[in-house]
Amino acid sequence: MIKKVRIVGAGLIGTSVGLRLKAAGSSVEIIDINSNAMKLAADLVKSEVIAEPDLIIIAVPISANTQTVVEQLSNNSKSIVCDLASVKSDLLLKVKELSANSDNFISLHPMAGRETNGAQNARADLFEGRAWIGVSDSFSHAKNKEIAQNLVEICGGTLYWLNSKEHDDLVAKISHIPQILSSVIAGSLSSLSRENLNLAGQGLRDLTRLASADATLWSQILTENHAAIATQLDLIIDDLNHLKQSITSNNSAAMVDFFNKGNNGKSKIPGKHGAKNRDYSYLPIVIDDKPGELARIFNECAKVSVNIEDLNIEHSPGQETGLITLALSNSDCMKLSNHLENLGFKVHPAKNR
Amino acid sequence: MIKKVRIVGAGLIGTSVGLRLKAAGSSVEIIDINSNAMKLAADLVKSEVIAEPDLIIIAVPISANTQTVVEQLSNNSKSIVCDLASVKSDLLLKVKELSANSDNFISLHPMAGRETNGAQNARADLFEGRAWIGVSDSFSHAKNKEIAQNLVEICGGTLYWLNSKEHDDLVAKISHIPQILSSVIAGSLSSLSRENLNLAGQGLRDLTRLASADATLWSQILTENHAAIATQLDLIIDDLNHLKQSITSNNSAAMVDFFNKGNNGKSKIPGKHGAKNRDYSYLPIVIDDKPGELARIFNECAKVSVNIEDLNIEHSPGQETGLITLALSNSDCMKLSNHLENLGFKVHPAKNR
Repeated sequence: MIKKVRIVGAGLIGTSVGLRLKAAGSSVEIIDINSNAMKLAADLVKSEVIAEPDLIIIAVPISANTQTVVEQLSNNSKSIVCDLASVKSDLLLKVKELSANSDNFISLHPMAGRETNGAQNARADLFEGRAWIGVSDSFSHAKNKEIAQNLVEICGGTLYWLNSKEHDDLVAKISHIPQILSSVIAGSLSSLSRENLNLAGQGLRDLTRLASADATLWSQILTENHAAIATQLDLIIDDLNHLKQSITSNNSAAMVDFFNKGNNGKSKIPGKHGAKNRDYSYLPIVIDDKPGELARIFNECAKVSVNIEDLNIEHSPGQETGLITLALSNSDCMKLSNHLENLGFKVHPAKNR
Repeated sequence: MIKKVRIVGAGLIGTSVGLRLKAAGSSVEIIDINSNAMKLAADLVKSEVIAEPDLIIIAVPISANTQTVVEQLSNNSKSIVCDLASVKSDLLLKVKELSANSDNFISLHPMAGRETNGAQNARADLFEGRAWIGVSDSFSHAKNKEIAQNLVEICGGTLYWLNSKEHDDLVAKISHIPQILSSVIAGSLSSLSRENLNLAGQGLRDLTRLASADATLWSQILTENHAAIATQLDLIIDDLNHLKQSITSNNSAAMVDFFNKGNNGKSKIPGKHGAKNRDYSYLPIVIDDKPGELARIFNECAKVSVNIEDLNIEHSPGQETGLITLALSNSDCMKLSNHLENLGFKVHPAKNR
């Protein structure tokens, strides 16, 4: 149980953590150098002044992170101080160098966020089902690990362990490079007329969603994680140069390879909320778009003891038929497919998947 | 009114157009060289054999597009033939060269699609609120423009006019480059473990959504539109090289400029036009993860005559409960929520949406 918490930084992340801890029964103090942000966040989390916090959470912009950690460590020698910043290697070196209390420091990185900032966008469930990275080389004591585990559990997340170098390399690949490529595409659209941009489909919107991110914040992240990002960016540029050659030399096989490599990487990303991509069979069934049709199918599933792992429904207003696709184990898929076909359902099992 | 339509190609696009035309009262024939795909699509659109179609819509892979257009033009001299392919300049030259009936040809490009292919993913509202490009230099007669306008209206879209060169340059920027960058990021993940990819947030999922696209199809698109894509790809590579230099020389101002240019481009993409806002209410229900649970819910839906528009299931390994979220009309949502709550289901309706 974390009884008394101070949060430094009344932005999206700090306020969201505060809301969650408050709901879990902790006493919470939230402070910020911006008095407006602090007032809103304090109202939201019912902030109270805390003299000796068990835990101090630092949720400030990355350029202020190291300094704030060091200050809080030296002013509160009995408190654990935990930062939530998105780049770690340099931070750990500096905290050890600059603070006599570095044994009280722990470093976590919640893999969550929104493209909107500020306390006004905070929500207690921001971290629900999210992964948190615990930076293993920041932990001096087993007791500190318990506090980290406790915080992540309260927030509804799952804790994974990486050392600071592994962390920085990984976030370069899964977070910083995606941000850069989203911004480069969005930047390449600057010269187009709004009329032409009106023609963009959902794909472009998805690809550029991150591009509205804060420019100053991101230049700080690139500065902090420059080595890992530069290495990864070189690889991306190499791949693009290689593709360019394939296009100009009309090398179809190389182009297919490029997209297949993308397919392969994409297929390795687990589904929602860390759920693993399991090896399911998919059974599409055409149904009439009226109440009761789904129940008929699920009743037949229950009758033959088939467990539905996932499903999706495609239908739209004004359409007479809908399509439901069930994800099943391979054996359940065959069993259910035969059963429903015998009953006259319009079942369309894949012939070779 | 388009009375009799033949659709050649029972994939995502062809079947979706078919569903919409059928719902609008047209007689629809859908054919495909793949008999499984044809059977599913024929069930979905209630296909019938049509001798003299008013309109023949070609929705085949781009490598087969020109040939299919030319064949349908020569075998159906009284029908308008309309292709929906995503690259146009070369197509127009070849149809004029190879067909005596090129006056009956019109060329459209609906700016819609999904990352999943096939009739099983088709939906009548795929084009709802989407932009369609009419290729102005493909139209020989004013009468043909009326048919195009009519088709786009039935599909719920808006028609814009560009010539074939303008079209190909624009789609390189707003569609082909985004696909390439989505694939290059996803490809760069191939070397990561699934465990590490488990840490990815929503940003990476958005950026790589397109990367599951068909490799062969996309190599054909790159081949067809090679000149425009190569030019645009050079500009992207230049921008990334420039950013790389800014990072290694620690030039903060240049990094801020890079992200600001992205902010600027992003802000020019119109908000609502492309994506249709489906006005559903969402009802989350916590369920036990065992056979029969879904059937119980759907039986109750049927009892109170509630129609489920869409749904999604989330459950994670090691977790005994799952979360099912139903998309419903506002009135159905209130009705079902009260009904299930009275029966003891763990229903979590949004308090203020």
